[in-house]
Order: sequence, then C-alpha cells, then structure tokens
Amino acid sequence: MAELSAAFSSLLGGATGISPYRVKVERRLSHLSGYFQDENLVRDMLSRRSDPKIYEVYESPQPEVDGLLNIGCTIIYPGKIGCEYFFTKGHFHKKRSACEVYIGMEGEGLILIQNRDGKVDGMEIRPNVLVFIPPDTAHRSVNTGKGRLVFFAVYPSDAGHDYETIERTGFAKVVVERDDRPVLEDNPEYRRV
Amino acid sequence: MAELSAAFSSLLGGATGISPYRVKVERRLSHLSGYFQDENLVRDMLSRRSDPKIYEVYESPQPEVDGLLNIGCTIIYPGKIGCEYFFTKGHFHKKRSACEVYIGMEGEGLILIQNRDGKVDGMEIRPNVLVFIPPDTAHRSVNTGKGRLVFFAVYPSDAGHDYETIERTGFAKVVVERDDRPVLEDNPEYRRV
Repeated sequence: MAELSAAFSSLLGGATGISPYRVKVERRLSHLSGYFQDENLVRDMLSRRSDPKIYEVYESPQPEVDGLLNIGCTIIYPGKIGCEYFFTKGHFHKKRSACEVYIGMEGEGLILIQNRDGKVDGMEIRPNVLVFIPPDTAHRSVNTGKGRLVFFAVYPSDAGHDYETIERTGFAKVVVERDDRPVLEDNPEYRRV
Repeated sequence: MAELSAAFSSLLGGATGISPYRVKVERRLSHLSGYFQDENLVRDMLSRRSDPKIYEVYESPQPEVDGLLNIGCTIIYPGKIGCEYFFTKGHFHKKRSACEVYIGMEGEGLILIQNRDGKVDGMEIRPNVLVFIPPDTAHRSVNTGKGRLVFFAVYPSDAGHDYETIERTGFAKVVVERDDRPVLEDNPEYRRV
C-alpha cells in the first residue's frame, strides 16, 4: 500500500503558510547580493550587520518524477531597499514546458512574469487570487504591501530551477515605491540574454 | 509574446468557485445512475422526475502537454440518496504517475482515495485543508456537510481521466450517515478489478 502512504493533508495558513512542511529555505539580504538596484545601500547595510530577512519558502517536495507536484508557501516580509520592494530571486524552470500556479493567502503583491525576450507582465496577487504562470517564463514575487505577502504554489516536481539566468540578467522591470504606491519601471541594469 | 498571453488571473470563491472559467460540467442524479447503493430509490426518484443536481465542476483546462497544469473547482451540493451522501463519480488518471492537489474552500467532506488493490483511505477536507492525492489512486469527493462542499484542484493537464474502472468496480467503501454522522462502511457491491 505504498501509494496510500503517500497521501497527505496539510493545513494552509499560520506562521509558516503551510504545515507540516518538509523543507524551509530562508533568504536574507546577504543571499540577494547584486539583486537590488541600490548596491551601495546594500553594502552599507551589510557592513553595519543589518541583514534583514527578505523571504522564506516552506515546501513539501516530491521526487522529481513527471506527473508529481510540489507544493509550498512563500512568505515575503514587508520592506524596501531604497525605493525597491522586497522580492524573491526569481527563476525560470529548467523544464521549459513547466508552468506554475500561485494562490494568494495574505497581503498583496505583484508577480513579475518575464518571457525569454525580456517582455514583462506584472500580475497582482492577494488573498483568493490565483495567478497562472505560463511555461518558459521567469517569475519573481514582490511584496508591495505593509504586511507579509503569503502565497501558495503548485508546480511539477520535475520542473527544476534555473536561478542563474535571472541572476545574470535581472528582470527588465523593477517594482518601486513612488508617492506611496508601487510602480513598474524599466530596469536600466537589465542585460538581455 | 505568445507565452505571456497565456498568463492569467482567476478569482477563487463565489457561486462558481473560480472565475472566470472555460468549462462547466454539471452532474445530476441521472448522470450517476448505478453509482449509489439504493438503486430502487434512484429509479423511483427519476421516475418521479426528481433529478437533483449532485455536483458541478468549473475548469480552466490547458492543452494536454507535459508540464502544464489544469485548475478547477468542484462544487458538491448537500444531500443524500438514502443514507449515502452526494459524491462525485470518481476516477483514476490515465497517466498513472499523475497526482492531484485539492484545497478546501467551503463546507466539509471526505476525499476517498483508493489504490489499485481496493485499499481506501478517507481524507477530511474543509477550508484551508490541502489533500495530496498520490499517483495511481482513484479519488472520489463526498459532501458530508449541511452546505455546499467547494474545493479547488490542480493536476497535470496530460493526466487524463479513467472513469470506466470505478464505474465498473465502485469504491470499496461507501460514506453513509449513521446517527447524524458520516461513517465509512464496506461496500458489499464492490467488485475487485
């Protein structure tokens, strides 16, 4: 009865977004060195031992087998580096046909979705809003609110993660605060692949 | 920018569970002829033109391509045929490695999960409870509450549906009301594959 032992329930909500979970990833500012526009400010903060927690991911991953799905919750803390809101690193999937489904649970934000040509869309996420991330697009989540941004994700367990491309190129747009509101602006540092 | 045109948002909740949606399936008692235990009662109801709506499914399906995910909501109305709660037909996936993820949104119920040997588990579902349905198991959803049971589902778009096996064998357990409470009992009509 091996299959049935693999059935499980999880509770959504609370401090970790999903419980129980099997894997926790924590990303502080020092893990996102080079990602934010104001690199001088980042260097200054880190030299003063100010290393804020940017986001956490709690996951229940499955073996990397076609047909299986990973589930997890991402929690992005509220905050900005200069005028740029806290965000996740962002990645493509290694398996180019793999899509992903997000469901907002708490807070508000934008999901940047960028294709291989650098065209970017910003999709709003908030509780009970689902965002479908199409295949072969990079996706980054940005907390534009005053509290935590918490969302649930489902994606094929064999999708794989390519963080390197975005680490090298960045996203073509940045999400910054202007007059107390989030705005998408062109990223002058964006390097086309 | 073909990929980006495929990004979309949906709102969860409300009458249809998800909006917008692309496909609606409606299942009345007459569509589930042969599924409930009390066949005399079913015949009698249908002869009296009583054909209650048992459930609806609202979906946004994708092309059947490895890596893509279908999303949808199932709404099971409250009610019983005799002492047996309203349920969905239940199916295996044709692609045996395909799993499925359910998230409860409204009401309460049981997800019957049955492996190829006829071993059955009943997993509770209610708002903010996620149920992971492992590969190669048949799954049926049962509304054991007083109101609608609404849950959200994500599964690989190339999973396929095998309804025929369950139509032939049934589930090894039925969910019936005893002393005002849902109970799993052996199904005397169950035919091993």
